[in-house]
Amino acid sequence: MSEKQALDWLNLHGERLNQARTRIRERGFWNAFPETPSEKIHGEGAKEAGRKSFESRLENPFAFPGFDSAGETGGERSPYGFALNVRYPAAAPEELIRRAAAAGEQLAAFSPDARMGIAMEAMGRLWARNFELAYSVMHTSGQGFVMSFQAGAAHALERALEAAVCAEEEMRRIPPIARWEKPRGKRPPLLMEKRFRVMPRGVGLVVACATFPTWNSYPAIFANVVCGNPVIVKPHPAAALPLAITVEVLRDVFAEAGLERDAAVFAADSADAPIAKKLAADPRVKLIDFTGGSAFGEWLEQNTPQAKVFAEKSGVNCVLVGETARPEEVARNLAFSLSLYSGQMCTSPQNIFIPEAHFAQTADALNDAMDGLLSDNARAVEVLGAIQSEETMRRIKDASALPGVARESKALSHPHFEGARVQTPLLAKLTTKDGELYRRECFGPVAYLIKVADEEEGLREMRSCIESRGALTALIYADDEDLVARALDTAARAGVNAAANLSGEALVNHSSAFSDYHGTGANPACGACLTDAAFVASRFYVAQSRRMLAAS
Amino acid sequence: MSEKQALDWLNLHGERLNQARTRIRERGFWNAFPETPSEKIHGEGAKEAGRKSFESRLENPFAFPGFDSAGETGGERSPYGFALNVRYPAAAPEELIRRAAAAGEQLAAFSPDARMGIAMEAMGRLWARNFELAYSVMHTSGQGFVMSFQAGAAHALERALEAAVCAEEEMRRIPPIARWEKPRGKRPPLLMEKRFRVMPRGVGLVVACATFPTWNSYPAIFANVVCGNPVIVKPHPAAALPLAITVEVLRDVFAEAGLERDAAVFAADSADAPIAKKLAADPRVKLIDFTGGSAFGEWLEQNTPQAKVFAEKSGVNCVLVGETARPEEVARNLAFSLSLYSGQMCTSPQNIFIPEAHFAQTADALNDAMDGLLSDNARAVEVLGAIQSEETMRRIKDASALPGVARESKALSHPHFEGARVQTPLLAKLTTKDGELYRRECFGPVAYLIKVADEEEGLREMRSCIESRGALTALIYADDEDLVARALDTAARAGVNAAANLSGEALVNHSSAFSDYHGTGANPACGACLTDAAFVASRFYVAQSRRMLAAS
Repeated sequence: MSEKQALDWLNLHGERLNQARTRIRERGFWNAFPETPSEKIHGEGAKEAGRKSFESRLENPFAFPGFDSAGETGGERSPYGFALNVRYPAAAPEELIRRAAAAGEQLAAFSPDARMGIAMEAMGRLWARNFELAYSVMHTSGQGFVMSFQAGAAHALERALEAAVCAEEEMRRIPPIARWEKPRGKRPPLLMEKRFRVMPRGVGLVVACATFPTWNSYPAIFANVVCGNPVIVKPHPAAALPLAITVEVLRDVFAEAGLERDAAVFAADSADAPIAKKLAADPRVKLIDFTGGSAFGEWLEQNTPQAKVFAEKSGVNCVLVGETARPEEVARNLAFSLSLYSGQMCTSPQNIFIPEAHFAQTADALNDAMDGLLSDNARAVEVLGAIQSEETMRRIKDASALPGVARESKALSHPHFEGARVQTPLLAKLTTKDGELYRRECFGPVAYLIKVADEEEGLREMRSCIESRGALTALIYADDEDLVARALDTAARAGVNAAANLSGEALVNHSSAFSDYHGTGANPACGACLTDAAFVASRFYVAQSRRMLAAS
Repeated sequence: MSEKQALDWLNLHGERLNQARTRIRERGFWNAFPETPSEKIHGEGAKEAGRKSFESRLENPFAFPGFDSAGETGGERSPYGFALNVRYPAAAPEELIRRAAAAGEQLAAFSPDARMGIAMEAMGRLWARNFELAYSVMHTSGQGFVMSFQAGAAHALERALEAAVCAEEEMRRIPPIARWEKPRGKRPPLLMEKRFRVMPRGVGLVVACATFPTWNSYPAIFANVVCGNPVIVKPHPAAALPLAITVEVLRDVFAEAGLERDAAVFAADSADAPIAKKLAADPRVKLIDFTGGSAFGEWLEQNTPQAKVFAEKSGVNCVLVGETARPEEVARNLAFSLSLYSGQMCTSPQNIFIPEAHFAQTADALNDAMDGLLSDNARAVEVLGAIQSEETMRRIKDASALPGVARESKALSHPHFEGARVQTPLLAKLTTKDGELYRRECFGPVAYLIKVADEEEGLREMRSCIESRGALTALIYADDEDLVARALDTAARAGVNAAANLSGEALVNHSSAFSDYHGTGANPACGACLTDAAFVASRFYVAQSRRMLAAS
């Protein structure tokens, strides 16, 4: 088995890799994959070609060379109103695990450098298919086109690269060999040679979500590959296509590197016959990465002791709107955060705590800002995207029955897609008496304006929400610097990443690879952080061997 | 709150700390704390003074300033035959957690550097009490005096230092601040300041064992302190004294640094009224480190999802004796490994696989080597130490009824301690039909000589034992280099640290800080490795905050 091809790839992508190694420590801005979906950057016709590639998948079986299967599954529908009718091979959990485990032996035998070459080449090929990925993310998640390109392709690959480099960094700190020489006075020293091997942990299961199928799963997929763990990619049944493309690319790259394709297998299933629990409970599965609801996340955390579990679950993101001289600016920033992809981001705000003294003023300003942002229909549908699931539609409907609704969710028509589910955000006014309601995640375009006595009560409620139910983000607007400092400190203690006084295009929703830590691994919504040492360090172990050396 | 005193200590211990930072990457030999219990090194009268300090504790209450308690517990007996009659304050789990959590707020507010200063000073003070620690370890664990000094004081502190430095290294890689500047074509860039705070995880519970009360618990205790997590030290009821001394030192150092003493609390209990489960299940406890039997270790892994669990549990360490031209040398090395501290080490061999072709010869050589090693009674009792528990005595008794006993366990008298429980190792001959027996840990001086058809069968059985029941060590003796390579490879894949062809004083039992990884975290006996990145990286999290910067 030769590593030549893989090491050639390592070389080929050396510049991007070296930059990544530096950038991850500096944590400033870096677009490893340029995020603008412009043909000036990506070549004339690139967008159209990507669209055609996407369309060529529709109404067809999605075959994986080397992976024959008797069964078939599928049934994705675009939130923009049409059926994809892509059919994926369906395989039993036992077969998926057996294949991945067997192929993992070869992958494990490759050096970390060779595996990094494979990962870099796969990223490169996925990037070459960025528009195709974007359309497949758009028509499964319901994201607007620009977000699909950015989050679904560019930023997802940045997160992949970040996690790969972070894993590599931890592995590199283990010296392959050491000479151990213990002095023994006048006798010759006791001499030993110690070898340290970085060993993969075992089969990795990655259970993805429907709203960010690539962004949330790429860190785990690529960290696993670099650490030598074969991957079972279990997509959400509603957003399989982007990950089918991903697995297709990985399998090709494995094959060209001289490895078995099955080091990545695709575990398509359906809502009627889910296979994730069976996969997760298998003793050969040693790593589980999950993004989705708390119920299954907690099941994983409590029922798969053989595996390390990294779960991003439900949460209630909180905002405190303190007193400020720029209420309109605050309202514009917040309106954008609430509207972007219809609040279907794990980072979207839900609970907005507003002191009594400026509650009415803030609610009005927010309403006006929403009007401004969403008045132009063509722009509004791009910002809002489409509603990913019927469950979210149901949640909007349920929320519309709340007594405090201050702004209804309105269905918008989409200029290009007749059946698109486009909805404006619903705002409901609550008080602290409604704690039971706002302590539950209401995923989608529903936000609560919660009246509190003052900033202090807002802070307390925010902390209590985050500690009891978890959050990915917290945000404070206030001119009072002391209040801002205390709010940021409160957030840090509650285990959530926070932002203060954002304005303009700077949104609390955004989380940039190589700079922002996504999640903390320290509150109920996030058992892991993308991407820190704890996210990668358990994906391998060190096996050491000791031998005597003759005294020199 | 001033960090001055803590930072002065950091300075004071700067040389040791800087060495540690280098040595941990080189992984060669380093005695950070000289291991020879000689008064030439430690000063005339040091040993006697230590003994007197130890004796002054006997028959007395062990008071912790600032920790009043109504209840009292105790009841340690030296395996060398006398009652210690030290009484420790007994407190309810709720009070212990409340105290630790409250004191943790102050500890968290200290910088990692200041906390490292505290840890270094505590290590220095414990080292100044090395002989006292040694006697307290000796008369709780039953270790011989030299091992008590080495493993109980010198090596335990080396493991403490190693874990502290490893934790510091991971924390240091997070930059405190970054400037994020996103270009926006002709418009001014989007500018943000990002701050990254390393935050402690929460209350750490350390549940120690009776055989290596300090060595196995110090890595967690000191990694927790450096990461800012207050520690609840829950000793084994039979080996409380060494950890009471440890907590006493930590509390003094905290107080002198200006912190609350309760950042370390002592959770003494008794076998009749154990409190570990209640402590472990509390939601404020976020880190649990445990050394002991599999039953409780697995309970922790399955019932405390709120905490990260690092557990070292039961295992079956394996040896393969291949064909070699030096059978007597092999036998001498193995006899020493089996006899040292009566096999009461988590690294002691249990299952010795020997091919049929030289089974009889190897068994005879081992018997002869045992005779040689243990013929001199004065030397034998130092090597063997005493049997720590009645359960181990019972296991020896049970094993003596096996049909294949090849060498009985003999009671030896101790020249200085009349009631000491000293026993020579029992050897029993088994075949692969006895798999059910040798797949169970028989902790203590009982080893199985298992006849296998050939080396290949031995390797297979070894792998199967390790994968199903776990192990801390594996060892192969053989002249065939190809066999050695395959055995080491098999061990690495099974997730166990291995050694080959050890001889003389090089024992498989030994595990040196700054060089050997102890455990892998990758087999049923060890959910953690001392000390790798995975052991420390989850003891803190990163909380980030983002703010806008005006364009420059």
